[in-house]
Amino acid sequence: MKRHVILLALSLSVFFSANAQYKPTWESIDSRPVPAWFEDAKFGIFIHWGLFSVPAFAPTARDGVGVYDRYAEWYWQKVTDPKQKTHPLFTKFQDRVYGKDFKYQDFAEDFKCELFNPDEWADIMKQSGAKYVVLTSKHHEGFTLWPSAQSWNWNAVDVGPHRDLAGDLTKAVKDKGMRMGFYYSLYEWFNPLYKSDVNAYVDNHMIPQMKDLVTRYKPDVVWTDGEWDYPSETWKSTEFLAWLYNESPVKKDVVVNDRWGKETRSKHGGIYTTEYDLVHNDNSLDTKFTHPWEECRGIGSSFGYNRVENLEDYSSSKQLIDILVDKVARGGNLLLNIGPTADGLIPVIMQQRLHDIGDWLAVNGEAIYNTRAWDKAPKVSKDTRVFYTKKGNDLYAICTEWPSQPVAVTGAKKLTRVSLLGFKGTVTTKGNAIVPPTVTPATMPCQHAWVFKLEGAL
Amino acid sequence: MKRHVILLALSLSVFFSANAQYKPTWESIDSRPVPAWFEDAKFGIFIHWGLFSVPAFAPTARDGVGVYDRYAEWYWQKVTDPKQKTHPLFTKFQDRVYGKDFKYQDFAEDFKCELFNPDEWADIMKQSGAKYVVLTSKHHEGFTLWPSAQSWNWNAVDVGPHRDLAGDLTKAVKDKGMRMGFYYSLYEWFNPLYKSDVNAYVDNHMIPQMKDLVTRYKPDVVWTDGEWDYPSETWKSTEFLAWLYNESPVKKDVVVNDRWGKETRSKHGGIYTTEYDLVHNDNSLDTKFTHPWEECRGIGSSFGYNRVENLEDYSSSKQLIDILVDKVARGGNLLLNIGPTADGLIPVIMQQRLHDIGDWLAVNGEAIYNTRAWDKAPKVSKDTRVFYTKKGNDLYAICTEWPSQPVAVTGAKKLTRVSLLGFKGTVTTKGNAIVPPTVTPATMPCQHAWVFKLEGAL
Amino acid sequence: MKRHVILLALSLSVFFSANAQYKPTWESIDSRPVPAWFEDAKFGIFIHWGLFSVPAFAPTARDGVGVYDRYAEWYWQKVTDPKQKTHPLFTKFQDRVYGKDFKYQDFAEDFKCELFNPDEWADIMKQSGAKYVVLTSKHHEGFTLWPSAQSWNWNAVDVGPHRDLAGDLTKAVKDKGMRMGFYYSLYEWFNPLYKSDVNAYVDNHMIPQMKDLVTRYKPDVVWTDGEWDYPSETWKSTEFLAWLYNESPVKKDVVVNDRWGKETRSKHGGIYTTEYDLVHNDNSLDTKFTHPWEECRGIGSSFGYNRVENLEDYSSSKQLIDILVDKVARGGNLLLNIGPTADGLIPVIMQQRLHDIGDWLAVNGEAIYNTRAWDKAPKVSKDTRVFYTKKGNDLYAICTEWPSQPVAVTGAKKLTRVSLLGFKGTVTTKGNAIVPPTVTPATMPCQHAWVFKLEGAL
Amino acid sequence: MKRHVILLALSLSVFFSANAQYKPTWESIDSRPVPAWFEDAKFGIFIHWGLFSVPAFAPTARDGVGVYDRYAEWYWQKVTDPKQKTHPLFTKFQDRVYGKDFKYQDFAEDFKCELFNPDEWADIMKQSGAKYVVLTSKHHEGFTLWPSAQSWNWNAVDVGPHRDLAGDLTKAVKDKGMRMGFYYSLYEWFNPLYKSDVNAYVDNHMIPQMKDLVTRYKPDVVWTDGEWDYPSETWKSTEFLAWLYNESPVKKDVVVNDRWGKETRSKHGGIYTTEYDLVHNDNSLDTKFTHPWEECRGIGSSFGYNRVENLEDYSSSKQLIDILVDKVARGGNLLLNIGPTADGLIPVIMQQRLHDIGDWLAVNGEAIYNTRAWDKAPKVSKDTRVFYTKKGNDLYAICTEWPSQPVAVTGAKKLTRVSLLGFKGTVTTKGNAIVPPTVTPATMPCQHAWVFKLEGAL
Repeated sequence: MKRHVILLALSLSVFFSANAQYKPTWESIDSRPVPAWFEDAKFGIFIHWGLFSVPAFAPTARDGVGVYDRYAEWYWQKVTDPKQKTHPLFTKFQDRVYGKDFKYQDFAEDFKCELFNPDEWADIMKQSGAKYVVLTSKHHEGFTLWPSAQSWNWNAVDVGPHRDLAGDLTKAVKDKGMRMGFYYSLYEWFNPLYKSDVNAYVDNHMIPQMKDLVTRYKPDVVWTDGEWDYPSETWKSTEFLAWLYNESPVKKDVVVNDRWGKETRSKHGGIYTTEYDLVHNDNSLDTKFTHPWEECRGIGSSFGYNRVENLEDYSSSKQLIDILVDKVARGGNLLLNIGPTADGLIPVIMQQRLHDIGDWLAVNGEAIYNTRAWDKAPKVSKDTRVFYTKKGNDLYAICTEWPSQPVAVTGAKKLTRVSLLGFKGTVTTKGNAIVPPTVTPATMPCQHAWVFKLEGAL
Repeated sequence: MKRHVILLALSLSVFFSANAQYKPTWESIDSRPVPAWFEDAKFGIFIHWGLFSVPAFAPTARDGVGVYDRYAEWYWQKVTDPKQKTHPLFTKFQDRVYGKDFKYQDFAEDFKCELFNPDEWADIMKQSGAKYVVLTSKHHEGFTLWPSAQSWNWNAVDVGPHRDLAGDLTKAVKDKGMRMGFYYSLYEWFNPLYKSDVNAYVDNHMIPQMKDLVTRYKPDVVWTDGEWDYPSETWKSTEFLAWLYNESPVKKDVVVNDRWGKETRSKHGGIYTTEYDLVHNDNSLDTKFTHPWEECRGIGSSFGYNRVENLEDYSSSKQLIDILVDKVARGGNLLLNIGPTADGLIPVIMQQRLHDIGDWLAVNGEAIYNTRAWDKAPKVSKDTRVFYTKKGNDLYAICTEWPSQPVAVTGAKKLTRVSLLGFKGTVTTKGNAIVPPTVTPATMPCQHAWVFKLEGAL
Repeated sequence: MKRHVILLALSLSVFFSANAQYKPTWESIDSRPVPAWFEDAKFGIFIHWGLFSVPAFAPTARDGVGVYDRYAEWYWQKVTDPKQKTHPLFTKFQDRVYGKDFKYQDFAEDFKCELFNPDEWADIMKQSGAKYVVLTSKHHEGFTLWPSAQSWNWNAVDVGPHRDLAGDLTKAVKDKGMRMGFYYSLYEWFNPLYKSDVNAYVDNHMIPQMKDLVTRYKPDVVWTDGEWDYPSETWKSTEFLAWLYNESPVKKDVVVNDRWGKETRSKHGGIYTTEYDLVHNDNSLDTKFTHPWEECRGIGSSFGYNRVENLEDYSSSKQLIDILVDKVARGGNLLLNIGPTADGLIPVIMQQRLHDIGDWLAVNGEAIYNTRAWDKAPKVSKDTRVFYTKKGNDLYAICTEWPSQPVAVTGAKKLTRVSLLGFKGTVTTKGNAIVPPTVTPATMPCQHAWVFKLEGAL
Repeated sequence: MKRHVILLALSLSVFFSANAQYKPTWESIDSRPVPAWFEDAKFGIFIHWGLFSVPAFAPTARDGVGVYDRYAEWYWQKVTDPKQKTHPLFTKFQDRVYGKDFKYQDFAEDFKCELFNPDEWADIMKQSGAKYVVLTSKHHEGFTLWPSAQSWNWNAVDVGPHRDLAGDLTKAVKDKGMRMGFYYSLYEWFNPLYKSDVNAYVDNHMIPQMKDLVTRYKPDVVWTDGEWDYPSETWKSTEFLAWLYNESPVKKDVVVNDRWGKETRSKHGGIYTTEYDLVHNDNSLDTKFTHPWEECRGIGSSFGYNRVENLEDYSSSKQLIDILVDKVARGGNLLLNIGPTADGLIPVIMQQRLHDIGDWLAVNGEAIYNTRAWDKAPKVSKDTRVFYTKKGNDLYAICTEWPSQPVAVTGAKKLTRVSLLGFKGTVTTKGNAIVPPTVTPATMPCQHAWVFKLEGAL
């Protein structure tokens, strides 16, 4: 085997020798700047869709389980591994609803997506103000939403909906002028090839899949996950990224994240990622100001659709707008997840949330898109109710609560031209403080959060 | 046959002779007052659930179809009757999704209701501020949600969920202190007994079913429908109602509606009914002020769950609160419909709407419950933005738009004690006009509509 | 209720007053001779088909259970009634294969009959030499194979195959020149109407169904069953039979059996019936010589298809031919049952048995059809190997074992013209004994049983 | 790529250098004698079972299609490839029964095998007199009946029955003292890896599968097929066979066939094979006398179960016994196929055929097992009715028709001790001719064919 590896290494080095801008080393890969479109976009939609959308079940906060135990997309692993803390909650559901002889693979027949209308999805996402979309091309279950040759009879064209879900959505999203990306899980829980020979898995299954995905659909985002079992060397991540950056059809614009091996989060790759505010290898959020990053989370507590989540389990529109403001003010993006159903629909409550965010952004988007974090902003804490973003010489003060007192702005120039976005009346100042104008329900420009624009304040 | 009928008439007359307060005539039946609890309740939840919840499809306004063509609960009739205008839209869906050989009855196997949690349903409805619930015990399809002996193998215990949905929900609703009622369709589109011999159908099927329903679950509301093919005499409506009012276990409190025969709407029975604002036999809404009535409608355009309804097809919380205010101000009730899914869930968007109404009622309920229409209120038009209700000596002015000018109240006594419900500040008056106080998003008592209470104004 | 019954009795007597040959009394009904075609036909095919064909399971002799516990068509009753001895064997199967939440009614969706080809069935039955066919129009489960209005949504047109199985088979059978009849179960195990009010059941459900069946398909046989719970008076059997004999379109040719009430077997009605050789009210088989009768039984141990029956559970062709010979020699008919599958096929092993009988009858049919029992035949015992039938002046000696010695015939005239059916050589006699000719496998006219024709012996 | 191949070749040569009896060349492989057990066994059972057992359909001779167009196991290919002559017959069936949107992979959910009882299967096969069994471990569909890691989610443990069908049957067959083997298709019609890169397919998929199968279950027969697209070099057949013969746990006893590449039938490998009497590369049957060979065929016209085959489509027991006699007399084996159902049963008609063969072999087995063809036998033609086998000094004359004249035996010694197997009487001779004894149905030792044993005739 050893000679074989050497030979492969040789051929790779030959492959990358000429004209290649990036080398398969982290030093070289990390030297590529994150394409600017990403930091300008601020708001994207994450979509978790797969066979887990059929049982569409996980316990909720009402069951007293932790954040990571509410993920419906982990269903297979949870019903299978008795060491999981929530295993009994999942298996009880499985046995009651599907019976003891039912296996996860049997869900494929009910993943029909018969009402899937990619143009409607794209409309809904476009209207939300999102600039990009990231779809689970393959989650840890290994089931692909595109006709992957490496995943024969375990993809959405061969079984289930018999449709290229990834391709059809990509077209609709791009047609609407949004950018399209894919989530891709490096590992597959139960793939026997992965479990018996990770190298063969990487060479014969994973890398061919990823290259197929990139060349077939030309995504703007490659959002990997499931990297934690092995170091990036095992996954051959730098080789793949060198190919992606040097040779692939998306080498110019593609954005990747930091999930490329057990050692890479918040260290290597492209953007850094948090998930429900957790940074896996780095708890100092403030360091993020210096590197593009993105928070992902669901509207409820799960990424995959969880049928038993009730209204109380969903974040309100107000909460989501607060989160968006918080992330953007810290220099991050928000990748807000929706979990479509097995029949191919975006639950209307999720449509409602996206719609409300869209309404808010229609008034206040100029304080979000294309802005950057203001380095002189007061340190953000959980009591913060005024957040700042900047663009050019302008500063934006975003109040997530209507201020009952004047809002003092420290660190800016003298306030001269101040306005409340969407409000026709004038806004006065008192020293370096903004005096909130008198508004009524009839003159209120929007709900949830209000933006004072401080023109020329920088 | 003739002698048989005479004999039956004789025996009925004997049956009703002694001690019976009500006789099987409309004159006698109509003499019973509608129990007061109903007019005090104002707000109820209608639930359309049945086999139609499986395909859960109808065209929407986006398809350019009229109000009555968006009813998903009419699916069977629509795919069957080629004379229906919307027939092609339904059959195209049916053929594409289920195939040409699939029949409506085949949906029974997929009506599983496996996630039905009646206590959660009751919580959601209770929290909305509703005081009563009306469930489709049987819609025009003839499928019953209770184990009806007359509907063997065509009910929810024998097939589908194998569960007494009606009974389980009744218990949960009553446990939460709400009143429980049942919708019941007199006719059944495709029942061969109905089609071949309506009298045998009425005697052997319908009347036994209704009596079983009443004695088994003791409902507070018997909400009939599907009466239009025949006069009330054919349905033996007055006989049934005489039994209901004289003999049944709910004779004291039960409320019925006006759908008892092709000639009865807005004329006979109990409360009068409108549906999406249409009064079937009487377009003069103002006449309703003199008789208890109720408007029913969906949150979207359908009563039965329609999967293809998007956010734009749903009324907003604001719109629903406006509707509630309008109906109550005219002396009516609102029976707002929800359409649960085939797996037994209330779609979260519907939960959201109910929740928002509940939040509004938590602040403003005293202007709704137990009130009556104010006979001196200005005639309501589509431009009306101030509605009135009264209770004892107090008058309530409900503004569905925040007034930018003082609100003049004509016909009341001098305004002395005026307050804004939920607002801690004072409200001043200018002559007989209410001066809207200054509020901010921080001091606003609620959204959507605001109530000025005029104590002692009557 | 009483007056009602009197009135009905009156109207019935009026109904039957004019021109009616038969009165609704057993004396009158029993006076009608069984139509001659039946006794001439000798061999018919019974078909048990219904929802029980889906699970298609019963224990077998290998499980040590008795004859009546091997009936797969009793599946529903067996899994339901814990007092049944074989209940645990059925429920273990049910739970393992279908799960604990599965109910019998759920089998309807899998009764597809998608390969049902009535012309092929008719060919197979015709080729077997059978002269008539009796299909279960409705077994104790209550599910009808025709679109019965009284059994809405519990019949083969509304659910399952969505096809008029009874009608399609009737046409094919008649087209092939065979007579067609129907089995019909008077009672229905779980019909709530039957269980709560047998009189209403009989009036509104059973009698209308039977009349519909007769007028719709004009069967030559009405083969009732499930009569044991009530006396014939409750079932109104004589009224129905009077209608059948006086008014129905099949009054001339129709044959009925003796299962019309708990007191009627081997006493009243038309032909007497045995089942796996058991006479329910009369163990003296010899009395049957004086009245037309019929033995019914399966090829295996079940009437409904039982998937777990192996070859050892099926009677061999030899055994079946012996049974046919035995019954015919005693003056009876054989109604041999086949159990088609849920996909609409006659299992090929059953085709094989029918084919072998047909081959045998092609050679020896003249000793079967149109014959009668010979009253001077030696009393039949289990050791009997020579059976006799007669027709006109001819006598037939049917040897179910090749005789190693001459066959003495006692009670006939002198043997003059003796032949072996299908054999070209001559047959000699020795006194009143037939001397078996020398045959080889090459000259053998048939297998299984051999017939010596004794012309003019009577 | 080239260097890689060279390296692999080098490593293979190293691998095989020491102690290896067989080299990966046809010359070396072909030098291994077929293990004697195979030629002694004479009669084996072939089993075609897979997803094709679900639709279980092919046209039959009644449809006027040729031999190879009646194979139900080719269903997937037939409904997919419009160039197939029988394509319309298959697609018409598919569309009618399953609908246009149904794909072959969707059959997996209905391959439940819920009644599979391997011990019963083994009993049935043992009783037939078969000495070995060959099961389709994987047919051209690629679906494996064992949990193959290379066929994740496309095998009987992951989907469908969720059971190791191959393993469970292997155990039962071996427990009954029979030998167990596997059919394995080299190619897979629709495997994208096969279609895009046959070398990767062979290296990463096929060879690992075959080695897994051999090491896991230790089969006595490896019966390959689907070899015709490529020469054996592509399949790396000699490398595999060298491993099988040198290293595998079955190196001593394993028997293989001649289907190892487009050039190998009747040339290389182990036994030569015919199929429905067709020799793919060699029409001169007589050459077979010099090399062990085997005829395979179904009881009907299909290998996979074909539901629409009627009795007329099945060979009779007589025909099958004639075929067995013919093949054995020519030096061949008969591998008679059965096609179990999707619910896991051997159709009883097939049980009947096996049982009849078993009955015949119980009497006549000594003329079959352990015999060899007699080189002096008259050349076999379609009119041949006397066949010969030999064992030691004894000769067997097998008459497939009862001889009406003495049977002359040419080429043997003087007939001295002659007997009819199973017959207690004596058999006389007239010169070198056997005089058939007088038998009656009562003294006949068996049906279908009769064996005269000529002791010491060689």
